[in-house]
Amino acid sequence: MDYPSKLIEDAVNQVAKLPGIGKKTALRLVLHLIKNKAESTIALTDALSRLRLNIKFCASCHNISDSDTCFICASHKRDRRILCVVEDAKDVMAIENTSQYNGVYHVIGGVISPMNGIGPMDLKIESLVNRLNDDRCEIKEVILALSPTMEGDTTAFYINKRIKDLMGKITVIARGVPVGGDLEYADEITLGRSILGRTLFT
Amino acid sequence: MDYPSKLIEDAVNQVAKLPGIGKKTALRLVLHLIKNKAESTIALTDALSRLRLNIKFCASCHNISDSDTCFICASHKRDRRILCVVEDAKDVMAIENTSQYNGVYHVIGGVISPMNGIGPMDLKIESLVNRLNDDRCEIKEVILALSPTMEGDTTAFYINKRIKDLMGKITVIARGVPVGGDLEYADEITLGRSILGRTLFT
Repeated sequence: MDYPSKLIEDAVNQVAKLPGIGKKTALRLVLHLIKNKAESTIALTDALSRLRLNIKFCASCHNISDSDTCFICASHKRDRRILCVVEDAKDVMAIENTSQYNGVYHVIGGVISPMNGIGPMDLKIESLVNRLNDDRCEIKEVILALSPTMEGDTTAFYINKRIKDLMGKITVIARGVPVGGDLEYADEITLGRSILGRTLFT
Repeated sequence: MDYPSKLIEDAVNQVAKLPGIGKKTALRLVLHLIKNKAESTIALTDALSRLRLNIKFCASCHNISDSDTCFICASHKRDRRILCVVEDAKDVMAIENTSQYNGVYHVIGGVISPMNGIGPMDLKIESLVNRLNDDRCEIKEVILALSPTMEGDTTAFYINKRIKDLMGKITVIARGVPVGGDLEYADEITLGRSILGRTLFT
């Protein structure tokens, strides 16, 4: 498509780099910004550049944070004996939203994926080992809450191998039929796992 | 949802103000920016703020432009005897992409919509009348290319009333079944119009 202005073209190209946004959507967003007050564009660009330049990662768990220690690691109300290993900050938010977990986290920043050139060294697994090795460490249980994919399973397997001598109790989150899901639509692997992993009826 | 950081929350709220983007998508985009290099965020915010602060509107046709006169009005290759009235800059781009039109444009900036508080005075209709009234005006035909909606029709009706004494030939773009569309799926009004507006088979 030909754009009537170089400014529009530059803006569309930049916006279209965002995941899931194509040129047409980018153009719609850009024209929306032009139609609205300059203040709203400035508020948007300010928030994004402030975010990108000032965002920090927690020195302990690598979660995104405004300060050097994230609000979960800094909190006195959390149970420091349980640690949950997750892939990224989105997963921390998702688990926090369940209100079912009161321990701390460790964000490894991805999963092992040879196809994408991501090995164990690219993830914060060494940092997890060091954390568990620390004399002041109070952690008694590590929960592996990685995606139930091949990459996630590989990563969990690798982490388990690295920390099994340091940690007595290593658990994984339950796999089974989703709550509210219809049994007949569950795939056979999930359904099979949910039978193998059956729990006592309470 | 609770965000781990005020910076994230601000950025998500700003991004979610864009049309068609909800909080979940906004969060995904914001986390994408964090994961990538700071340079790409700066390139994005720079392009957007430069766009918003430097974009101009053509003094003659009100199309968006990098300079005071848009590239269409400035071109010597365009036929200045035909003028096409459109709603906004997106429509100019759409018509330009057809490569079927070589005249000039007049962007009125919206349609008359009493529901949204937009009256004829909020649009560039007066400017169109002045343009046609100008002694140096060469325009012989005005094409009304507004959306085939009630608001678009109302606006076309109003413009026709204002300019019919100034302009001998006022046309509207053809309405009928879309090319490639299946006849049985065309709504009855469109199909009815396409029968009334039938043209000689060539």
